[in-house]
Amino acid sequence: MKISVCRKAHFNAAHRLYNPDWDMAKNDAVFGKCNNPNFHGHNYTLEVWVKGDINPETGMVIDLKLLKNLIKDEIEERFDHKNLNLDTEEFKTLNPTAENICLTIWEILRSKIDTALELRVRLYETERNVVECDGK
Amino acid sequence: MKISVCRKAHFNAAHRLYNPDWDMAKNDAVFGKCNNPNFHGHNYTLEVWVKGDINPETGMVIDLKLLKNLIKDEIEERFDHKNLNLDTEEFKTLNPTAENICLTIWEILRSKIDTALELRVRLYETERNVVECDGK
Amino acid sequence: MKISVCRKAHFNAAHRLYNPDWDMAKNDAVFGKCNNPNFHGHNYTLEVWVKGDINPETGMVIDLKLLKNLIKDEIEERFDHKNLNLDTEEFKTLNPTAENICLTIWEILRSKIDTALELRVRLYETERNVVECDGK
Amino acid sequence: MKISVCRKAHFNAAHRLYNPDWDMAKNDAVFGKCNNPNFHGHNYTLEVWVKGDINPETGMVIDLKLLKNLIKDEIEERFDHKNLNLDTEEFKTLNPTAENICLTIWEILRSKIDTALELRVRLYETERNVVECDGK
Amino acid sequence: MKISVCRKAHFNAAHRLYNPDWDMAKNDAVFGKCNNPNFHGHNYTLEVWVKGDINPETGMVIDLKLLKNLIKDEIEERFDHKNLNLDTEEFKTLNPTAENICLTIWEILRSKIDTALELRVRLYETERNVVECDGK
Amino acid sequence: MKISVCRKAHFNAAHRLYNPDWDMAKNDAVFGKCNNPNFHGHNYTLEVWVKGDINPETGMVIDLKLLKNLIKDEIEERFDHKNLNLDTEEFKTLNPTAENICLTIWEILRSKIDTALELRVRLYETERNVVECDGK
Repeated sequence: MKISVCRKAHFNAAHRLYNPDWDMAKNDAVFGKCNNPNFHGHNYTLEVWVKGDINPETGMVIDLKLLKNLIKDEIEERFDHKNLNLDTEEFKTLNPTAENICLTIWEILRSKIDTALELRVRLYETERNVVECDGK
Repeated sequence: MKISVCRKAHFNAAHRLYNPDWDMAKNDAVFGKCNNPNFHGHNYTLEVWVKGDINPETGMVIDLKLLKNLIKDEIEERFDHKNLNLDTEEFKTLNPTAENICLTIWEILRSKIDTALELRVRLYETERNVVECDGK
Repeated sequence: MKISVCRKAHFNAAHRLYNPDWDMAKNDAVFGKCNNPNFHGHNYTLEVWVKGDINPETGMVIDLKLLKNLIKDEIEERFDHKNLNLDTEEFKTLNPTAENICLTIWEILRSKIDTALELRVRLYETERNVVECDGK
Repeated sequence: MKISVCRKAHFNAAHRLYNPDWDMAKNDAVFGKCNNPNFHGHNYTLEVWVKGDINPETGMVIDLKLLKNLIKDEIEERFDHKNLNLDTEEFKTLNPTAENICLTIWEILRSKIDTALELRVRLYETERNVVECDGK
Repeated sequence: MKISVCRKAHFNAAHRLYNPDWDMAKNDAVFGKCNNPNFHGHNYTLEVWVKGDINPETGMVIDLKLLKNLIKDEIEERFDHKNLNLDTEEFKTLNPTAENICLTIWEILRSKIDTALELRVRLYETERNVVECDGK
Repeated sequence: MKISVCRKAHFNAAHRLYNPDWDMAKNDAVFGKCNNPNFHGHNYTLEVWVKGDINPETGMVIDLKLLKNLIKDEIEERFDHKNLNLDTEEFKTLNPTAENICLTIWEILRSKIDTALELRVRLYETERNVVECDGK
């Protein structure tokens, strides 16, 4: 029987949504206020879910302290208090929509977590806008 | 790889739970205080989850502004500040339990959203009572 | 030195806002959708704050189990799963706005709580609409 | 079409994480502050999800009052205001990690709920640490 | 007897904290990551509290629809999806700390709300950082 | 004009409520399940509010990073993952009710924060039980 465990984290970042292949009018039509050239920002809340067997010696699926530190080192250090478009390699050319941020975080964490464990990432951009990725 | 996106919304409504085929005693036994003939009410919180591929041009699965407006036009306009039993077509004869409201919302939205996208609806009747429907 | 203690509670009720001295047009202008003659409803969240000295024998300002039961007997029993306009003495003629509900709850509880203790009542009608009364 | 319904509940308990087969140094290395021999504690929030067909007579999957009472009798009575290690049969020898508590609750409730209904249990140990079990 | 009423709102913005009279080293020492020259951002949650007498004709202290619209016109239009440092008059030279944003919002709203009503503004910059201003 | 700023923090602890001058029957009558001799526990959420003038050079009342670290060093280190009755000097003889914990935290922080700043401490023992102390 598999158990899922989750660790939550937060990061605050600025971003702008736009497609450089489009002119300003089309970017405004599609992305609205999110296309502000001077950027806007969010408090992102992240849930990282890991699913696997309980280790009978520890009673844990994964040590949540390790998962907490992994999220800190790989995600918070990279994105917290950053301008996603200007300060990060990941979104230099990739549009930092909530979907793309979530997928990017999933890919970063997937490469660092034992493949015997399933991985699911949920990202809250605001209280009302949420995205989720499980790699399937 | 599929990504899920969610938009939250709210509506406030009155309702009464009862089965017209039963007498008052049986309705009271089954529905308790929810069978108050003068109605009671709730702040309903709605989560609409849509799952699909990321459009590479927009970086989005679905434009959340469109989804927000769809929920506003199809669900909030229909149910917000209404008496579900008296003011709506949907619950004239269907008992407005959380389960039936959730299923009805799923059916309304399913008919309006591209079938290439999967749809899941979660409804909070109170902080402690929640229902969810994914059409399966 | 005084300490404040708070107990939260919930009740779900239907209501309609209107002034019987006004015609329907004026009621609609002032109360909008809240004037639906068939009622709508809310999950009300209540915070009851009591302020006073710590009793050195118990380490408490007031026994929160007693406060919980007082709220249950005096407020939840009276208003939960009720139509405030039709089912309660308090709002037969008093318009059940959040302000009037909060004031009414304050008055009911004030008469039941030791006057050596200060009383403050906060009422959430929705997540975004809140009222508070401290009797001053 | 299946609908999921959820009831939330709470219990407050003390616990200590450790493996009696290990010495104190290894227990400290693995469980950190959670290995305090004098115990620490949490407010646990529990979500019990049940999935099944809507009964056409009631409009319900399961009567949430019954589910609420089942959780009260089987889980809250057993674990609320208890020391999980010292006061409960379940964790006399089983390490009360969030994973093991969640699995134990799933097993207790699974034996009491109609097998035609699917069961999923989510447990929040803190706002940031969550586990989930669906028996698969 | 006075009653307080509150309306909540949200806006998402980018900002940078720094003092132009200081060099980069001192700005980094004081403002840390908040001094990122490329900006970062937040979901700001705003509570606007107004205190006064209940109008006996309406049962209200202030029409919350009017207060909602005032917040929308004066605050959300001005700050939502903006870069506070670059896009707003208010923070061209004033450092957009949570304290200064809260004070600025208080001053804007104070000039628009009947002086018979007391005004208090609370601003959540993150879930853990909050500021409040009541003009005293 | 004064501004209030708040920093939130968390700690998880075990405790038992009882008065050693009373017999078990009286302790049970007054403290109920909280008198479990094996302890129970809570996730405590702490809000520390500081009120004062905005420093015109920084735009801040107090550096929230300093306040965060003060809470970490003085409160979290002392109480997190502890048994309040057994592991702390403060509650060796003082009954660790929410009121007494809140007052104790206020006194510890009061001695460490500039007296030009007003101090208010709010403590959530559960979602429904809250206490607050401002030293008056």
